[in-house]
Amino acid sequence: MERENRSNVHNDKLFEQIYDYLLERIRRGEWKAHDKLPSIRSLAADLRVHRLTVFKAYQLLKRNGDVYVKDKSGYYVHPGSQSMLGPLNDPIVSAYVHESHLSEIHQVQADYQFSKALLDPNLLPNLYLSEYVKKVFDLYPKVLGTYSTVQGDQELREALCGYFTKGFHFFVSPEELLITSGSQEAIDLVARVLVRPRDAIMLERPTYSPAIDVFSRQGAEIIPVDIYPSGYDLEQVERIMQTSRPRLFYLNPTFHNPTGFTVPAEQRKKLVELAETYKCLLIEDDPGRDIYFGDEPPLPLFSFDTAGYVIYLRSFSKYIAPGLSIAAVACRPSFMNYLIRTKSLSDSGAPLLNQKIFLHYFFSERMQQHLAKLRIALAVRKDIMEEELSGTGWQWTSPAGGFNLWVELPASVPMDRLLSRCMEQSLTFVPGTICDPLRESTSRVRMSYSYLNETELRAGLRRFKEVVFSLTTF
Amino acid sequence: MERENRSNVHNDKLFEQIYDYLLERIRRGEWKAHDKLPSIRSLAADLRVHRLTVFKAYQLLKRNGDVYVKDKSGYYVHPGSQSMLGPLNDPIVSAYVHESHLSEIHQVQADYQFSKALLDPNLLPNLYLSEYVKKVFDLYPKVLGTYSTVQGDQELREALCGYFTKGFHFFVSPEELLITSGSQEAIDLVARVLVRPRDAIMLERPTYSPAIDVFSRQGAEIIPVDIYPSGYDLEQVERIMQTSRPRLFYLNPTFHNPTGFTVPAEQRKKLVELAETYKCLLIEDDPGRDIYFGDEPPLPLFSFDTAGYVIYLRSFSKYIAPGLSIAAVACRPSFMNYLIRTKSLSDSGAPLLNQKIFLHYFFSERMQQHLAKLRIALAVRKDIMEEELSGTGWQWTSPAGGFNLWVELPASVPMDRLLSRCMEQSLTFVPGTICDPLRESTSRVRMSYSYLNETELRAGLRRFKEVVFSLTTF
Repeated sequence: MERENRSNVHNDKLFEQIYDYLLERIRRGEWKAHDKLPSIRSLAADLRVHRLTVFKAYQLLKRNGDVYVKDKSGYYVHPGSQSMLGPLNDPIVSAYVHESHLSEIHQVQADYQFSKALLDPNLLPNLYLSEYVKKVFDLYPKVLGTYSTVQGDQELREALCGYFTKGFHFFVSPEELLITSGSQEAIDLVARVLVRPRDAIMLERPTYSPAIDVFSRQGAEIIPVDIYPSGYDLEQVERIMQTSRPRLFYLNPTFHNPTGFTVPAEQRKKLVELAETYKCLLIEDDPGRDIYFGDEPPLPLFSFDTAGYVIYLRSFSKYIAPGLSIAAVACRPSFMNYLIRTKSLSDSGAPLLNQKIFLHYFFSERMQQHLAKLRIALAVRKDIMEEELSGTGWQWTSPAGGFNLWVELPASVPMDRLLSRCMEQSLTFVPGTICDPLRESTSRVRMSYSYLNETELRAGLRRFKEVVFSLTTF
Repeated sequence: MERENRSNVHNDKLFEQIYDYLLERIRRGEWKAHDKLPSIRSLAADLRVHRLTVFKAYQLLKRNGDVYVKDKSGYYVHPGSQSMLGPLNDPIVSAYVHESHLSEIHQVQADYQFSKALLDPNLLPNLYLSEYVKKVFDLYPKVLGTYSTVQGDQELREALCGYFTKGFHFFVSPEELLITSGSQEAIDLVARVLVRPRDAIMLERPTYSPAIDVFSRQGAEIIPVDIYPSGYDLEQVERIMQTSRPRLFYLNPTFHNPTGFTVPAEQRKKLVELAETYKCLLIEDDPGRDIYFGDEPPLPLFSFDTAGYVIYLRSFSKYIAPGLSIAAVACRPSFMNYLIRTKSLSDSGAPLLNQKIFLHYFFSERMQQHLAKLRIALAVRKDIMEEELSGTGWQWTSPAGGFNLWVELPASVPMDRLLSRCMEQSLTFVPGTICDPLRESTSRVRMSYSYLNETELRAGLRRFKEVVFSLTTF
């Protein structure tokens, strides 16, 4: 796929290649902040290109703030230029404060993990799951000796088709479903297939922070779309689709993470129409629809889609069995072929054992009983969190489902200090900045009520309030 | 990361952006072969750029053979330009003949699958594995409710450290190990972290074909390195490292796939020295070292590495339990940080259940008994294949381990016809072209003896010989 020969000395394409090459090496940390880059003369000799070509590449690096010039003696790496991959060997704390990777907060050991939007393992029917595993081995004695297909177990995909048709009125064939190891893999696959550097894409603001990382890494130009308790501003959505022609809109319209908001039914149909009009794919991430506290949420966008503009990502891991890591992607066959081919580069399909356990458990009566209990347990925990935070004067919208409260703290609270102070006190939360595609600072935090039990919730929230109050300027 | 504004009308950078943009859309199949592209006027209006800029992009597409001009009426998509992602909805057979994706051969249902370098599930101790699974649930009753860490289960990584130190004299800490869902994920992660478009990398010729797909997709410029029964030509290796300064050399020095060759011990030390001298990382893929038929193979390259130039990929799935999909990556901490961060974009770590089952089974006495039996069973199958092929006049080097015979058929046999004829007869094999980084046609084929039982092997090979003879010109 090399389109121009490297020996084609000194032209504009070549200097950009060298620019890309240097930038990548800086980002990878081969040259650290304030390191001197090779001289123009020596680099030109190494790369066998004209010195002027190297000079032009260096000038562009300088113009973009990746290098600086000192004492006329040479080019040095600007400390701000390594943000994409970050410096090596950073302690975890500073890494996440500065770089905002959610996965790094999750590595922090703490007594009160309000950062984890995961289910308390004690809420899972662990004994029953063990029984189901034994059943799976009786049914498929050679399950551990067998690879799945890349697309996923046929029996599971067939069962899911029935489930989707019955529950959500959407009609997919097993060929239109792909099983992945969790929804994070699904987002990553979609991004790898669809997004190339400089592609415009839309993300909600705030959004699920690993999605920001995935799309940024693909080089996307991110256009934020505000989300409100009442949904989107559809005029804003249409304006963006019309003027920027984004490739896709990644969205989480049901019990949205981190806010808990749900986009109303009447907006869903309209969104699908906009997507079709402006040929913008909607990537609908829907991991939490089973965790509702009152009425069932509106149907997925996918249910309104007739022209193939919605790709539906449905994770089951969070509330059934995180250890299984099972998610499904529904989309039309033309796009499915790309997904399968890309997935085949990274594995031979989700492990068959996990798919079979999920299949037998998810479609069991026991699962429906579990879900009903789970909704009650989580509603109780949400109520406890709201009760503990009432009287603080902090603001939030009470969610109708999901795992999180999106809380606005007093603007005077310095977020970086709050975070480090909380971690000293063995307590974690997700700073809102991490969820902002623009990475602007905010006084909002995401507090998950799903991971801690009722006693821990109360004790942890009291500790949290103390820390916040100690940092609030009145 | 947008470095120049799109409104900066008509400059060289912009025309290349438009070129990239158009090329991607062609490759994705938005415009099919012989479709007419938008007129220069309309595209310039849509993109809000000068018409001359669009003209330059179209000219570059034409020069590179992606579009052609017809009747002076416009630009049309050249049928050869979609090879990277391929046309949609191709039947599987034509897809793999033309595009050579191993995963697509594996989707073909056939009675005699000589294409599968996988273990016959009947050779696995399935009943004992079921017992181990129950043990895992007794030990970790909440295993399905728990996420692993991204890096992998601490207990498993500690056990593997001991195993590596004892068996291979290499010293790694748990922080220097990453657990992945199979070695394919490991290769993909390494490629995503290390390879950017136009990076030179070295691959063996022939090589493990999914590795070609992974590195090609990252845009690597592939430099082939010949592999012989006696190993590499180290002068060729040094010459390439010296002149092309490749980023990495992906290699499979022990019971090499597809040839079965093993790089001798004396070359291994020298290779590591070359890697250090020329700062070229060695990505050592080592999935088959436990399947030896005579002496144990030489120590891994990683055992000779002191400066951190070897990244070791060790899959266990193939011969223990394919359904578990467990592999490990060993490398130094500076590189490990990048791997973990990249893996965190696609999942939360390999499923904990699979890691725990593997841990308890792999380090059991039963596993060692299984391995000893497996070596004998596979040696018997290899002997049967060699016996059946003796007297054909075809050439191969008898492998000292692994799953495959790399057989040279008479040059007069037309490979495409052989493949389709065999598939009509419900028999699959891997054409050598698929394993060639240069994709040149060859009369070699990879025949795996690991997946079929002894009776099937004999019957299948007799059928294969008949088809080859019927196509041989004497």
